[in-house]
Amino acid sequence: MKNRLSIEAYVEGVLAGNRLLLSRAITLIESQLPSDRVLAQLVLEQLLPHTGSAIRIGITGVPGVGKSTFIEAFGKELTATGKKLAVLAIDPTSQRSKGSIMGDKTRMEELSHDPLAYIRPSPSGGSLGGVANKTRETMLLCEAAGFEIIVIETVGVGQSETVVKGMVDFFLLLMLAGAGDELQGIKKGIMEMADAVVITKADGANQAAAQRAVAEYQNAFHLFPSHENGWLPPVLTCSAVEKKGLSEIWSQITLFDSQAKAGGFHLKNRQQQNLEWMHTLIRQTLEERFYHHPQIREKLHDIERLVQNEKWLPLRAATFLLDLFRQ
Amino acid sequence: MKNRLSIEAYVEGVLAGNRLLLSRAITLIESQLPSDRVLAQLVLEQLLPHTGSAIRIGITGVPGVGKSTFIEAFGKELTATGKKLAVLAIDPTSQRSKGSIMGDKTRMEELSHDPLAYIRPSPSGGSLGGVANKTRETMLLCEAAGFEIIVIETVGVGQSETVVKGMVDFFLLLMLAGAGDELQGIKKGIMEMADAVVITKADGANQAAAQRAVAEYQNAFHLFPSHENGWLPPVLTCSAVEKKGLSEIWSQITLFDSQAKAGGFHLKNRQQQNLEWMHTLIRQTLEERFYHHPQIREKLHDIERLVQNEKWLPLRAATFLLDLFRQ
Repeated sequence: MKNRLSIEAYVEGVLAGNRLLLSRAITLIESQLPSDRVLAQLVLEQLLPHTGSAIRIGITGVPGVGKSTFIEAFGKELTATGKKLAVLAIDPTSQRSKGSIMGDKTRMEELSHDPLAYIRPSPSGGSLGGVANKTRETMLLCEAAGFEIIVIETVGVGQSETVVKGMVDFFLLLMLAGAGDELQGIKKGIMEMADAVVITKADGANQAAAQRAVAEYQNAFHLFPSHENGWLPPVLTCSAVEKKGLSEIWSQITLFDSQAKAGGFHLKNRQQQNLEWMHTLIRQTLEERFYHHPQIREKLHDIERLVQNEKWLPLRAATFLLDLFRQ
Repeated sequence: MKNRLSIEAYVEGVLAGNRLLLSRAITLIESQLPSDRVLAQLVLEQLLPHTGSAIRIGITGVPGVGKSTFIEAFGKELTATGKKLAVLAIDPTSQRSKGSIMGDKTRMEELSHDPLAYIRPSPSGGSLGGVANKTRETMLLCEAAGFEIIVIETVGVGQSETVVKGMVDFFLLLMLAGAGDELQGIKKGIMEMADAVVITKADGANQAAAQRAVAEYQNAFHLFPSHENGWLPPVLTCSAVEKKGLSEIWSQITLFDSQAKAGGFHLKNRQQQNLEWMHTLIRQTLEERFYHHPQIREKLHDIERLVQNEKWLPLRAATFLLDLFRQ
């Protein structure tokens, strides 16, 4: 990377809350160059003691639910009270399709011009794990830069919610009121991860349907195993257009946060998240080393053919390749 | 293992359909002794050309749905037409709790005395992957022994369904008719794996509720992405007590099977399953080698503490341990 700064320049700039240096530090973190990776880790380690105090909120929902509109309205509600807010994203599709979230800051135009808000699109390229690791480290930089609330947005499809759930304190699921098919559009596993459900676009002709959806979701949550810390996820409504319901959502998040801190769940959860993240990185690296090994790359295709055609048992093939890798 | 036989004795015994030798070959496969593992692989490889022609059916459902009762009634229906049926199980809980499935053959008492049926409880011990590998290999032995239908039973919770789905041709989900909460008891991901849903205990006072459940599930399936081979999963009812609905289920399975074979999906699916199984075994072995490495075992606990307490970043810890492992 050109114009690379010293460790001290990044550290001091981020700690001073300098936007330009924060952005450059994030760019450093996102760099694929090995020398940049080393520098990035040194910067992060110096900043680590200054991280961790923000409330980390994950937000997900299917395309069309109005995530950007919600985050813009919710973010403005928070900055209006003087809170500093950073909005990050994990979007594994950002390279593949134009339907990516936050590819375009103009979707949150008001918030992007707010001096108390900082919006950073999803890093692109690489595996979901790689993208997520960069977002996780970016979150730490934003905390060191003084942001008190971190919102991490993701799409409501695929594996990215699990990854976001693994790095936030509070996971918010946005849903649309529909015609009886509320539970269909999103994977049920995501419902079980949610610390709250918000029915968006609860305005005008949608209000009655939104109230019905609230009742349905409340019923559904009673059937789920209860949350480890005793929290029963509330089901709320909001209208980003009419600015309704936003402060209630924030009240629930702060209530959750104070209960989680008082009961020890907050610390336990953060520790667990750190550990799981380490093990995820280990697993990913072990697999990368294996599948990128020259001997494996050379033989894999032939062995796969033998297995596909039932000439070799999967166990024999796995054993053969693992022996090759070990040598 | 005492009284180990020669490769030829196992191979010839299994091919002759000798029950005693089949059981001893399965015991060999389930053995943890490395020398037995080697012998087991040699036996399997000789039998491999004689495997693959059975219809492989996975059956799951939450505890209480009546899996054993269903399999007993369904199995008797099949053996009555002269079909040879083997019933296997994957039960990752079999060591931990007494609520294990098939721990006790007496739960399928009639079927277990049927000369055309062979029932083998879940292997116990080890990881889900280890248990599943043994069941997978046992399935091959049963096919070589002439069984035309293999039923693999599992519990409707956790990861075991994914594993069973990965080794069968047809995946049957058993459900109970309930009071509007039909979709709640089982993870939605399992619904999406199902090739058919059967509402059990559709008799007496339950019949009306069962018919309502059929309509609900049929609606739900229309909302799912369609099956790769164009199959729309039917929703059926049955009563094991009254022996109703069993032949319709078998008709649907044979219809699916003939369509899948004609359209090429059957072969493609089997090939894909073999490949995925190989990669699963590779991943599991890589992780085992890592976590059982003496240096990792010695240091892991301390490093985990550093990560938990945010002294070290997960990436630094992962890198440190991976470097240690590589040396």
